[in-house]
Amino acid sequence: MTTNHQIHLDNRPTGEAVASNFKLVVSDTPALQDGQVLVRHHFMSLDPYMRGRMNESKSYAVPQPLGAVMQGGTVGEIVESRHAKYAVGDKVVGFGGWQEYSVVDASVPGAVKKVDTTHVPLSAYLGAVGMPGVTAWYGLVKIIAPKAGDTVVITAASGAVGSAFGALAKVRGCRVVGIAGGADKCRYVTEELGFDACIDYKQHTDARAMSQALKEACPQGIDGYFENVGGYIFDAVLTRINAFGRIALCGMIAGYDGLPMPLANPAAILINRLKIEGFIVSEHMEVWPEALAELGGLVASGKLKPRESVAQGIAAAPQAFLGLLKGKNFGKQLVKLI
Amino acid sequence: MTTNHQIHLDNRPTGEAVASNFKLVVSDTPALQDGQVLVRHHFMSLDPYMRGRMNESKSYAVPQPLGAVMQGGTVGEIVESRHAKYAVGDKVVGFGGWQEYSVVDASVPGAVKKVDTTHVPLSAYLGAVGMPGVTAWYGLVKIIAPKAGDTVVITAASGAVGSAFGALAKVRGCRVVGIAGGADKCRYVTEELGFDACIDYKQHTDARAMSQALKEACPQGIDGYFENVGGYIFDAVLTRINAFGRIALCGMIAGYDGLPMPLANPAAILINRLKIEGFIVSEHMEVWPEALAELGGLVASGKLKPRESVAQGIAAAPQAFLGLLKGKNFGKQLVKLI
Repeated sequence: MTTNHQIHLDNRPTGEAVASNFKLVVSDTPALQDGQVLVRHHFMSLDPYMRGRMNESKSYAVPQPLGAVMQGGTVGEIVESRHAKYAVGDKVVGFGGWQEYSVVDASVPGAVKKVDTTHVPLSAYLGAVGMPGVTAWYGLVKIIAPKAGDTVVITAASGAVGSAFGALAKVRGCRVVGIAGGADKCRYVTEELGFDACIDYKQHTDARAMSQALKEACPQGIDGYFENVGGYIFDAVLTRINAFGRIALCGMIAGYDGLPMPLANPAAILINRLKIEGFIVSEHMEVWPEALAELGGLVASGKLKPRESVAQGIAAAPQAFLGLLKGKNFGKQLVKLI
Repeated sequence: MTTNHQIHLDNRPTGEAVASNFKLVVSDTPALQDGQVLVRHHFMSLDPYMRGRMNESKSYAVPQPLGAVMQGGTVGEIVESRHAKYAVGDKVVGFGGWQEYSVVDASVPGAVKKVDTTHVPLSAYLGAVGMPGVTAWYGLVKIIAPKAGDTVVITAASGAVGSAFGALAKVRGCRVVGIAGGADKCRYVTEELGFDACIDYKQHTDARAMSQALKEACPQGIDGYFENVGGYIFDAVLTRINAFGRIALCGMIAGYDGLPMPLANPAAILINRLKIEGFIVSEHMEVWPEALAELGGLVASGKLKPRESVAQGIAAAPQAFLGLLKGKNFGKQLVKLI
């Protein structure tokens, strides 16, 4: 038995999510059954999709249950094992949730997976070499499917998905343009992540201004767009997109807080004969091995150097999550638990 | 030399299109050069896409030139030929425009094509066995790609695209639900075109009411949607569409008159992991032979009995066209010229 601090969803947001939606709970880990392992989490992941699951209404996943541990990805170390294939000290990635320890049925496929930390840091398995990285990979490779010379654009460019997207697109010979909030993030996106240009949305606060900025950053127009914000930036992109452009839609942070964000001119989809596809990467498990192999290689070789925002301790998770929803993080948002 | 009445685009609409945008012009047909044929048009086609081309702004085609004959599809008969492969009396389909006669370079591929009127009436080559039919075919077969048992929905169901869509979807074992304006059209859609249900949008004039009507007409939700109107109906469909739904976007009449029609909740595209694709059938010529073969078979066998709205004489074309934009036609809108 080990003391375990957890964050539960206590009540659902009405409108904007707030700290009082969450509750810190202390319990003891249960004794292990045969086939189970006890994982001590080193890091837990905070991701925008979690906001959608806090709602009761129809979203792309079963809602997060009330009075239960917030669900989410984790990386950690086996500290007790009753499964023959896992030993104490093994580093694993899993879906342990917002808590310090999790008890996992290791024989359930995908519940826990050993990872190699020789060339890739453990935390990267929650970011560039995890769900966000594969999200970028799927949107770029399977939906946008760019050819060399295409111009591709992504919002939240300094984040976990954005940084992976940039590295993957550069490898494919694209012009990559990011959109991020603030001069610091934009500098990071171009200087450290290697994007060709980055637009500061805080300096371009409506569709008209953003459209003008996109015109300058994308002199050949936009061939592919990875949408994970929504709102006026999407509208602006539709004014600069080329015929037969492709749009991957994954996460519309701006719309999660209950207020729908309208799309001003959907006729542009027809006029430009666009393809738009919404996706959730967990529904495309068949691509994960190929995607993770490429992403792991990019991290190991230093071509992808993702930044992390690290909050310390389980109690800091709710505020870090609320900050993420407002774009206060800089790079992949993690909570460090050791 | 034959006297030829033509309708020119005289000036571009500012907002709604009006009759004074057009001008009736009388001229003589020129003497034929080698390789040319003179076609006497029996019918000309009026189509919603023509409204988009009247604008100078970016649309999916080169704008209709000012001071020139309005472009559009025609069927007719060769009355003079200086091309070895075409004889006087041949029935042909082409793109002769809003005029009584056209002179065509018959050696240009696709400029003029002989058609067989044994089992298919000549006018059908402008509708069910022409561009509108292939439009329905492409959207259904290539984008929506339904399996038997899927529920598919189309707006403007009583029109040329809608009627073909219904027949094609029934053959594939779908539940087909139409949306049309008025009790007469809805009765025609279910009783004569064989749709499973039809919703009268004049009785459901906002997204909430339309959503409720769709719920009743589509008890298993919507798997595929053919969008050619835009506006609140699109919003309502997004409230009833199933996960992994497919939307074919071809023509948004409601938006052509210069006023963009916003899409209220694009986040639904993500939440339901939809695929949306805008298309113009003239860019997919590779599918025409297969599509026309199926459509011709449906018409010849009586499984597709499309209705026509026929205006008489070239001078009636502008008013018939403006009526089409307001949904006043009932079935494929034609102008009869003989």
